[in-house]
Amino acid sequence: MDKLEILLKAAPKITREKNLNNLIEILSNLAKDMIEVDRCSLFIIDEQKKELYTIFAHGVNEIRIPMNSGIAGHVAKTGKTYVTENAYRSKFFNKEVDKILGYKTRNLLAVPIFDSKGKVIGVYQAVNKSSKFKSSDIKLMKLIAEFAAAAIENMMLYEKIKELHKKSLIKLSKAAEYKDPEPPNHFIRIGFISRLVAEKLGLDEEKCEILLLASTMHDIGKIGIPDRILKKSGRLEPDEWEIMKKHPIIGYELLYDEESELFQIAAIIALEHHERWDGKGYPFGKKETEISLWARIVSIVDNFDTLITEKDEGEPWSLDMAVNYMEAMKEKAFDPEIVNIFLGNMDKVIEIWEKYKD
Amino acid sequence: MDKLEILLKAAPKITREKNLNNLIEILSNLAKDMIEVDRCSLFIIDEQKKELYTIFAHGVNEIRIPMNSGIAGHVAKTGKTYVTENAYRSKFFNKEVDKILGYKTRNLLAVPIFDSKGKVIGVYQAVNKSSKFKSSDIKLMKLIAEFAAAAIENMMLYEKIKELHKKSLIKLSKAAEYKDPEPPNHFIRIGFISRLVAEKLGLDEEKCEILLLASTMHDIGKIGIPDRILKKSGRLEPDEWEIMKKHPIIGYELLYDEESELFQIAAIIALEHHERWDGKGYPFGKKETEISLWARIVSIVDNFDTLITEKDEGEPWSLDMAVNYMEAMKEKAFDPEIVNIFLGNMDKVIEIWEKYKD
Repeated sequence: MDKLEILLKAAPKITREKNLNNLIEILSNLAKDMIEVDRCSLFIIDEQKKELYTIFAHGVNEIRIPMNSGIAGHVAKTGKTYVTENAYRSKFFNKEVDKILGYKTRNLLAVPIFDSKGKVIGVYQAVNKSSKFKSSDIKLMKLIAEFAAAAIENMMLYEKIKELHKKSLIKLSKAAEYKDPEPPNHFIRIGFISRLVAEKLGLDEEKCEILLLASTMHDIGKIGIPDRILKKSGRLEPDEWEIMKKHPIIGYELLYDEESELFQIAAIIALEHHERWDGKGYPFGKKETEISLWARIVSIVDNFDTLITEKDEGEPWSLDMAVNYMEAMKEKAFDPEIVNIFLGNMDKVIEIWEKYKD
Repeated sequence: MDKLEILLKAAPKITREKNLNNLIEILSNLAKDMIEVDRCSLFIIDEQKKELYTIFAHGVNEIRIPMNSGIAGHVAKTGKTYVTENAYRSKFFNKEVDKILGYKTRNLLAVPIFDSKGKVIGVYQAVNKSSKFKSSDIKLMKLIAEFAAAAIENMMLYEKIKELHKKSLIKLSKAAEYKDPEPPNHFIRIGFISRLVAEKLGLDEEKCEILLLASTMHDIGKIGIPDRILKKSGRLEPDEWEIMKKHPIIGYELLYDEESELFQIAAIIALEHHERWDGKGYPFGKKETEISLWARIVSIVDNFDTLITEKDEGEPWSLDMAVNYMEAMKEKAFDPEIVNIFLGNMDKVIEIWEKYKD
């Protein structure tokens, strides 16, 4: 296969790859094949620790070196390419790394990696070419390093916006908490446990992730319920109860978005999480599979979590009591199949519950 | 420059490009240079309209053709590469397009573009090579098409998550509206007008975008104020007023996030949007440039919008009255420089205000 083909085959993989480690492995293999060297390694600058560390290196685990040490350190500092045909004669070469790895570096080509603003963010090294490095190798390595920088930056940008998006959703859930002080982290637990149940039901990974985020917002509609009802300590009067029962519809209206699957699922969960398998729930009295799968999952998770969690008033139920209740409510409040799956994975449920207890 | 170099130079540009039209132009130039043809065009399938349309084509504007017409239609349907050395003899060729463009297609190579799930999403065409297409050209074009598909898909994913993120923030602002029924779209107008003022102040584009989103959430803290105070129609008692004055702090606590610049700015706006230039505001009585620039902008925009907008009680002020008030409050409530910029761009402020009036 000629070099052009090698590169073109790698390009779409690089562009689509969403995992940093995989990405760097693909890039390093690319560099290895194109420059025809024995090994490649990519060092990234850790500004806080003043170190350089490899996010990928052929044949070795992570290497960490002080910021200004070795050839990589020299290149990171100067932002200039460095080539040596005899590493042990280079005044910058750090022999210690070879000693630790049990490897013999003969020759070495190191190029800096720049972000789009021109700041050095790392160093790409190619080690042990059987012949000497040619000027075309250096050119090639520089171009691969540029491609690597673009791909890494792109991926980090994507990760950043995804992270931000999750944060917004958590804040949305938290906003609802201001009105309805559920036990701390209630909504986070609902998210993680609902995702677990969805996984055990065999739903695909993307849908499980959506459920994790969407389910946290199921009670957001309580924002629209007046304090005098939401915070009343005694029993609600019938007319007050009618108003309270509107929180699923308010949540639906707030969340629904015709262009976003995430918000559609979040909206349907908000709308239907108080429906019951036997049709005696609210707001519409839907029953069995008329209720969306999402809401049937969240209803089980939400109820169980509420039972076993410490509240301001009243003791939490013991685990046994809560499990018995869930059993007893099969086909009454809950989808029996999902209850079975839920109870069948109680160890994992409790693991999540413990982790996010407060 | 050899082909390998052409490709490697294009790769980081392609990877970093965030604008679809620019991306396709880069890709088409790449294909043009590597296959050595006169023109390239990329057709995308519009499922809803059952059409194929060019998102880029050398030398022409958008072309739209029915889904099954022409060589592009044939390739889209079959998912197979098609080559002809004499287009006018091909039974699939659509002569009409040449007629409209005043162009003479001699030979043509068309390859399908697949998404990562293997579905055809478009067709990449290379037109008029001076010699015949070689098998290596076909291979190259297929690989470029794969690269194009990956880049397009990647970009669309990024756009989608960005869009979702914006939606979450808007929903967060809307959630606050449930408690404090501001005039409709108040928070959206605050966002767009604040961005306008920031632009006129010469802030960079990224910061202006952040302000657009961050400012919409300035009143989110009202979620934490009891209804009896928030919705009281008469004057607040001193103790009620003390509680009301906590909404900036509640907003800050809800929004602040140490890893996100957006939420940091949103938090500081929520915290300081009732501070005054003369130090007589709340919650801390900060003055002049002790108050963040963001909050000084939003305070002006928020006050002005409230004055001129129809409310349940009381008439809105006329534009003249509101402008006079802003003038009069310079150096009292507001940063005088920002007021000057705000009033100096009144035509654009009103344009946004009209657009999002209801």
